[in-house]
Amino acid sequence: MIAVLAGGVGGARLLAGLVQVVPPAEVLAVVNTGDDTELHGLHVSPDLDTVTYTLAGVSNPATGWGIAGESWSVMAALERFTDQTWFRLGDRDLATHLYRSGRLAAGAPLSQVTAEITAAFGIESRLLPMSDDPVRTRVELAAGGEVEFQEYFVKLAHAVAVRSVRFAGAEASRPAPGVLAGLAEAELVVIAPSNPVVSVAPILAVPGIGQLLAARRDSVVAVSPIVAGAALKGPADRLLRELGHESSVVGVAEVLAGVAGTLVIDEADAGLADGVERAGVHAVVADTVMRSDELAAALARRLLAVAR
Amino acid sequence: MIAVLAGGVGGARLLAGLVQVVPPAEVLAVVNTGDDTELHGLHVSPDLDTVTYTLAGVSNPATGWGIAGESWSVMAALERFTDQTWFRLGDRDLATHLYRSGRLAAGAPLSQVTAEITAAFGIESRLLPMSDDPVRTRVELAAGGEVEFQEYFVKLAHAVAVRSVRFAGAEASRPAPGVLAGLAEAELVVIAPSNPVVSVAPILAVPGIGQLLAARRDSVVAVSPIVAGAALKGPADRLLRELGHESSVVGVAEVLAGVAGTLVIDEADAGLADGVERAGVHAVVADTVMRSDELAAALARRLLAVAR
Repeated sequence: MIAVLAGGVGGARLLAGLVQVVPPAEVLAVVNTGDDTELHGLHVSPDLDTVTYTLAGVSNPATGWGIAGESWSVMAALERFTDQTWFRLGDRDLATHLYRSGRLAAGAPLSQVTAEITAAFGIESRLLPMSDDPVRTRVELAAGGEVEFQEYFVKLAHAVAVRSVRFAGAEASRPAPGVLAGLAEAELVVIAPSNPVVSVAPILAVPGIGQLLAARRDSVVAVSPIVAGAALKGPADRLLRELGHESSVVGVAEVLAGVAGTLVIDEADAGLADGVERAGVHAVVADTVMRSDELAAALARRLLAVAR
Repeated sequence: MIAVLAGGVGGARLLAGLVQVVPPAEVLAVVNTGDDTELHGLHVSPDLDTVTYTLAGVSNPATGWGIAGESWSVMAALERFTDQTWFRLGDRDLATHLYRSGRLAAGAPLSQVTAEITAAFGIESRLLPMSDDPVRTRVELAAGGEVEFQEYFVKLAHAVAVRSVRFAGAEASRPAPGVLAGLAEAELVVIAPSNPVVSVAPILAVPGIGQLLAARRDSVVAVSPIVAGAALKGPADRLLRELGHESSVVGVAEVLAGVAGTLVIDEADAGLADGVERAGVHAVVADTVMRSDELAAALARRLLAVAR
């Protein structure tokens, strides 16, 4: 079995590559829920949904979130009542949130509901939230004030400086059932090219997960989400800088050194391999930019080769 | 000011007639929330919405619920996950539920949220839920077992025998702010032709409301929802029988005698006027079947004439 720590788009694309080269049922994704949020009374799990929609083949590649060919009847009607519509909820996407929220209200844990949703989409891989307990990424802005992650990420379009990030509830949280066993049994654990400080870090902050990976770091391979100093998507580059790291593969290596023995860096960063090694992480150079399913599959093959 | 105790369709139609003959701002509707329900994590208030959509001119006259010209994208997508889709939620209707649920989750009372929703629809009349506290109509089936009202009404299509009805939470509930003052100050209180045992009774069960009306019953006028022994819509006739009343204007008079001094009965029931009077209720004969807005306005004019 291959286990993948995944945030949103980077995790979803890597998983889409992986299921082309290993049987999907042998893939486990442990997904960040630190950016889950409550909107209009509904429980929204953005990263779980991005992974789900991508593996189901219904994701919207243009946006990196939501469902392709989505309709917007509900949002249009909601604008009658409120201008709090910065988090766009498509009609079909809303059905997922309604089902999840109803099941959670009925007492089902998020991991169970996630299994039901992925089964409904015909997904053979196993998706687990990092925890069934609420962990919420909170962002302290440099200008003052703390906001929930989606307010920073979507409403403020991550265009503001950040002073610190914390994962509220993480200390008291427990890994979802199956997470520790899956991560322990996997022949390879991959840390997807997701934002190390706001997508991977919350997963590692759930007690037990970071420790387990640290103990087997020689068979944990991370893929850098930073290529040539910049994030392919999202604010990973500026967040790394704002939180005191270098926005480079060396900075990523330093952040993940405790849990990953190997970092796959892009060919554009081949010259920084020595810096990664100096951070105590083995550097592997590959084409990491998954511009197509074929390239994602090629990257997945490379990861398997590194592990074996 | 004219106050109206309203359930769903009968209340909505009467209100639509009333606002044609008195300034809408001088109309207060106190609306049943005993059939409110939680669906997919959302708070749904069927009677408040039926009244709102009717007064806003967007209701679906064919169904008696929901919005005309509605689309069903979310429900179609929800069917991927569950067959619990017997309560149909249209896309535009869902926007109302989302807004309400989000505001309630943020701590706003239902009366405040209702004011916001009706303002967004440009409604000048005041709509108040009977209570901001949860009161839930529960239906004990003759075959055994107790179900929530919507399960009886929608899922079972009210095609099953009922042993008893109770209003869970009513004893501890308080009238919503403005309800008692509005009912006390109104020159006329109308009890709409709504189901007396499951639409009007829960309103009267909120402590203080029934007592207030009893004290001023001479200026409380009810309109019979039973015409020629049958309900115009819904299960009022069979519910009256199953709960030990006569399914006639006389049965309605007996149920409402404590709070209404006058009952308006349809011309079809003119022969039963004596029976109504024997129940201690003054009988007025009128054309009560609101087949058009014009007939609803005519009925409203007649109610005002009765009161003055």
